[in-house]
Amino acid sequence: MTTQTPPDVNLQRAASDNARALQRPLHKGQQTRAAILDAALGLASHMGLEGLSIGALAELMQMSKSGVFAHFGSREELQISVIREYHARFEEEVFFPAIAEPRGLPRLQALFERWVRRVSVELDSGCIYISGAVEFDDRPGPVRDALAEMVRAWHAALERAIRMAIAAGQLKPDTDPAQLLFEVHGLILALHHDARFLRNPGVLDRARAGFARLLASHLAHQLPDPRFPVPHRLPE
Amino acid sequence: MTTQTPPDVNLQRAASDNARALQRPLHKGQQTRAAILDAALGLASHMGLEGLSIGALAELMQMSKSGVFAHFGSREELQISVIREYHARFEEEVFFPAIAEPRGLPRLQALFERWVRRVSVELDSGCIYISGAVEFDDRPGPVRDALAEMVRAWHAALERAIRMAIAAGQLKPDTDPAQLLFEVHGLILALHHDARFLRNPGVLDRARAGFARLLASHLAHQLPDPRFPVPHRLPE
Repeated sequence: MTTQTPPDVNLQRAASDNARALQRPLHKGQQTRAAILDAALGLASHMGLEGLSIGALAELMQMSKSGVFAHFGSREELQISVIREYHARFEEEVFFPAIAEPRGLPRLQALFERWVRRVSVELDSGCIYISGAVEFDDRPGPVRDALAEMVRAWHAALERAIRMAIAAGQLKPDTDPAQLLFEVHGLILALHHDARFLRNPGVLDRARAGFARLLASHLAHQLPDPRFPVPHRLPE
Repeated sequence: MTTQTPPDVNLQRAASDNARALQRPLHKGQQTRAAILDAALGLASHMGLEGLSIGALAELMQMSKSGVFAHFGSREELQISVIREYHARFEEEVFFPAIAEPRGLPRLQALFERWVRRVSVELDSGCIYISGAVEFDDRPGPVRDALAEMVRAWHAALERAIRMAIAAGQLKPDTDPAQLLFEVHGLILALHHDARFLRNPGVLDRARAGFARLLASHLAHQLPDPRFPVPHRLPE
């Protein structure tokens, strides 16, 4: 993984890697690896990345430990593979459909709405980005680096959508993209916390209302353009 | 722990308990317990509440395991005691000094500013409320209940400060206190995430700028009252 490459390039490259991967049938070994990875992702969502072990996974897959080891040479490599798999799925569900929307507010709103939905379907398991950040904030090493790189790539994609909305004249020219990103991310973190930990009702609407207020206070024209209603809802 | 008691009453009661505790000298046994608790709090801040074990603590304290067991009958009891100790310190540093400020905006601003500072001094260790929420969101039981009770008590205190600022006519009468609390909490979570995990610079100012913007958009009078400058900074 080249840390010099700008994050958005990684997202684009991952897209073409995925597209290529979909074109060819998986070998038997690749199928087994994909099945192990799928089980590992489920385990990590519930137990955390640190809860992953080759032993637990072998038991879950009814394989020998050495069978799992043949695909993932170490626990660390397994954790990093799980992070990459999570990232690929996050892109499929959130990033790629949203960048199909027109640049500017529609794309930014689609990114947020799909992110909210992703967190809401994960309420029974938990977001690996959010729980991983807490698990690994004190643990330097390649797992933490892989996780931080994925989170930064996602943040960079959001910040780019904000910059495009400014360039399109939809958001005020003095909007600070990094500040707006910080506040939008805060809404998602509060949603995850209040829904997962406090089990508060109605938090999806709190996150959406916060985003609508945030956008409204940065709109270049105080009366929202009717072409871009706030809040934006995707078709159910 | 009585879950029926309103959270604010718990904070008040804890205050008088603390005051009483300070008035009498600690017995030898109480001193040992306090020293173990102090070490346990340090351990939990770095390793998480799930990283706490009687064995690790005994080693750290150069005591026997049974010596630690004599003070905390189980790992669970130890975890709950650590949560209560953390809460007591949080109150000492954040809650009690802030409620000495006049009701309304000054108190709300002091609560936020002291919270931000608390998170900023914890950047090397981590906030037990925030990391504990992720550790225990999937683990029902008395530890999770104790943690959630403390977090709810703190949130209730903040919401009360918001209600007072509305009642005082400083915030708009249609301000939704729970929504404002949700968004303020999001700023703190984003601060913790970006500073601890991403190690981004300048995040304290991002949190403060977000709070200032949030308050400004809810002020009853669009020009801020000069008696209540936004953002509010405590004397260094």
